[in-house]
Amino acid sequence: MPALGPRSLRILGTGAALPADAVTSAELDDRLGLAPGTVESTTGVRVRYVEKGTAAALGARAARQALAAADLTLDDIDLVVAASGTPDQPLPYNAALLHEELAPARPLPSFDVGASCLSFLTAVDLVATLVDAGRYERVLVVSSDLASVGLDFSDLGASGIFGDGAAAAVLGPAGATGSAVLAAGFETYSSGAHACEIRGGGSRWAPDRVAGEGDYADWARFRMDGGAALRLAVRHLPPLVERLTAAAGVAVADTVVVPHQASHLGLAWLRHALALGEDQLVDVYADHGNQVGASLPFALHTAVSSGRLQRGDHALLLGTGAGISMGGVLLCY
Amino acid sequence: MPALGPRSLRILGTGAALPADAVTSAELDDRLGLAPGTVESTTGVRVRYVEKGTAAALGARAARQALAAADLTLDDIDLVVAASGTPDQPLPYNAALLHEELAPARPLPSFDVGASCLSFLTAVDLVATLVDAGRYERVLVVSSDLASVGLDFSDLGASGIFGDGAAAAVLGPAGATGSAVLAAGFETYSSGAHACEIRGGGSRWAPDRVAGEGDYADWARFRMDGGAALRLAVRHLPPLVERLTAAAGVAVADTVVVPHQASHLGLAWLRHALALGEDQLVDVYADHGNQVGASLPFALHTAVSSGRLQRGDHALLLGTGAGISMGGVLLCY
Repeated sequence: MPALGPRSLRILGTGAALPADAVTSAELDDRLGLAPGTVESTTGVRVRYVEKGTAAALGARAARQALAAADLTLDDIDLVVAASGTPDQPLPYNAALLHEELAPARPLPSFDVGASCLSFLTAVDLVATLVDAGRYERVLVVSSDLASVGLDFSDLGASGIFGDGAAAAVLGPAGATGSAVLAAGFETYSSGAHACEIRGGGSRWAPDRVAGEGDYADWARFRMDGGAALRLAVRHLPPLVERLTAAAGVAVADTVVVPHQASHLGLAWLRHALALGEDQLVDVYADHGNQVGASLPFALHTAVSSGRLQRGDHALLLGTGAGISMGGVLLCY
Repeated sequence: MPALGPRSLRILGTGAALPADAVTSAELDDRLGLAPGTVESTTGVRVRYVEKGTAAALGARAARQALAAADLTLDDIDLVVAASGTPDQPLPYNAALLHEELAPARPLPSFDVGASCLSFLTAVDLVATLVDAGRYERVLVVSSDLASVGLDFSDLGASGIFGDGAAAAVLGPAGATGSAVLAAGFETYSSGAHACEIRGGGSRWAPDRVAGEGDYADWARFRMDGGAALRLAVRHLPPLVERLTAAAGVAVADTVVVPHQASHLGLAWLRHALALGEDQLVDVYADHGNQVGASLPFALHTAVSSGRLQRGDHALLLGTGAGISMGGVLLCY
């Protein structure tokens, strides 16, 4: 971890958006001919949402809410960052399509930050440096993922845990408030690069390359070896948290833990591994599933809007993502 | 443009990689039953390259060359950034797959920076702040795109100008050398968001969403309204260049111009619009085509390795990308 002091950064506002359509686990039991309760007990999810529109439009809804919460408009923003886990289209990049939805009056610069389920956390760390150094002043970060388009609910293990959603945050200078990023760290263990993947859709497994090898929809399905991902997290996440808390001089016990909502098993493990108190972990999984890149900022928005995270509190944002990467940001909210 | 001073940054080494297979315009004339010289005069490209492997493996070749040029190894790097224009897979992100190819001894952090053909330039601007602020020390930035997988050479207008390739740079602190990013600016005009696009492959036009609407390979084709893109560039790129040169206090005439190799028409326009001298523009287009995200760093590598860009020279890195975005970085090499 580089020897870096606190970086002035304030979360000025957060927002979230959910699709209109929901699918309950009871409905899935029925659809799949399973005994009542099977899907919920297998996946830990009571209800997940399914979007029929675009990730960009869903993300724009979350963005407008974050702007309103910050009492700002797009005119106050000088950078738009899309930090989703998956592409809306292979070209152009997500932030351009989000920009189109937001239609700012000025040609605001925009780019994507991508690290699958850690995209938002990676963006927070980047933006902390950009804002602290004065490269940009107020940055809109938006995560929006439609996991549902690649799911096959007959494969509950890979598909039952996911849901669609979007979340956003406006990040800016902290002034004299004391808000800051105190420590941040990221690591990629690419021995697990194929433990969670969508193969079809990019250049590696382009339609022309796998012509005649089955329905392309099957190439575009999400596939997961959840055990392999969890094993890497179990081994490497606790030492990363130790380094972060030591660098920040803040004990885990004195933080609100805002994790990527990977799975009920992952969250249960995290609770145990970090010896978290009853209400210390922000857990919105059962009512949304794993919302991929939108999952962590969705949990953050819930923590803020519910009053669970108060000004002056320390928050430990934490997660793993396909890659396999892990990362954490310890901040003063 | 924010009032920001020079950011200390040195391009420590560059590299590039080309696929083994090339397709000449003469071969395409023959394949398409056109009169000899038709494809070259239409596209401005003599030869383009076509990769049969993965973008990650091609990018890793360029990365190793950049490390060797910097007289460094992966052990000296503390961040891997993939700055390609298109996804290798929808999940995980490009940098994780590149990380897998590079197989560093430590779990180096990694993420993607995406802004289609401006991804590398966006990454240079970001990394300048990260290095100057001490967040990371030595950063490997790699761009690798396989445009060929979505092309249909019977549609010369959209497909004839592209080629595959990869390029990389190792970026680090400048010390007392004087190397620095003097000015940088980016703008997105998303009224042109669909002027250059690949629709199929992400969530918006996922296979399940367009089932029964034709061969998915057609959804994954690159489509371009080159005129619309060029019109936006003609209107907005010259004023951006003026702001950059004013902020840096360096005249265009005193720079080596390293542009995204968008098209022969785009490069001819740029030469004229900026009143560039005979050898001032780095133009590698005819022998590679437009290499998407790899195009600008490929031109940069050519400028460095050919001796065209010398230490102490000012370079104006400049381009447009699907979005439509435009951007520039004026640096002292």
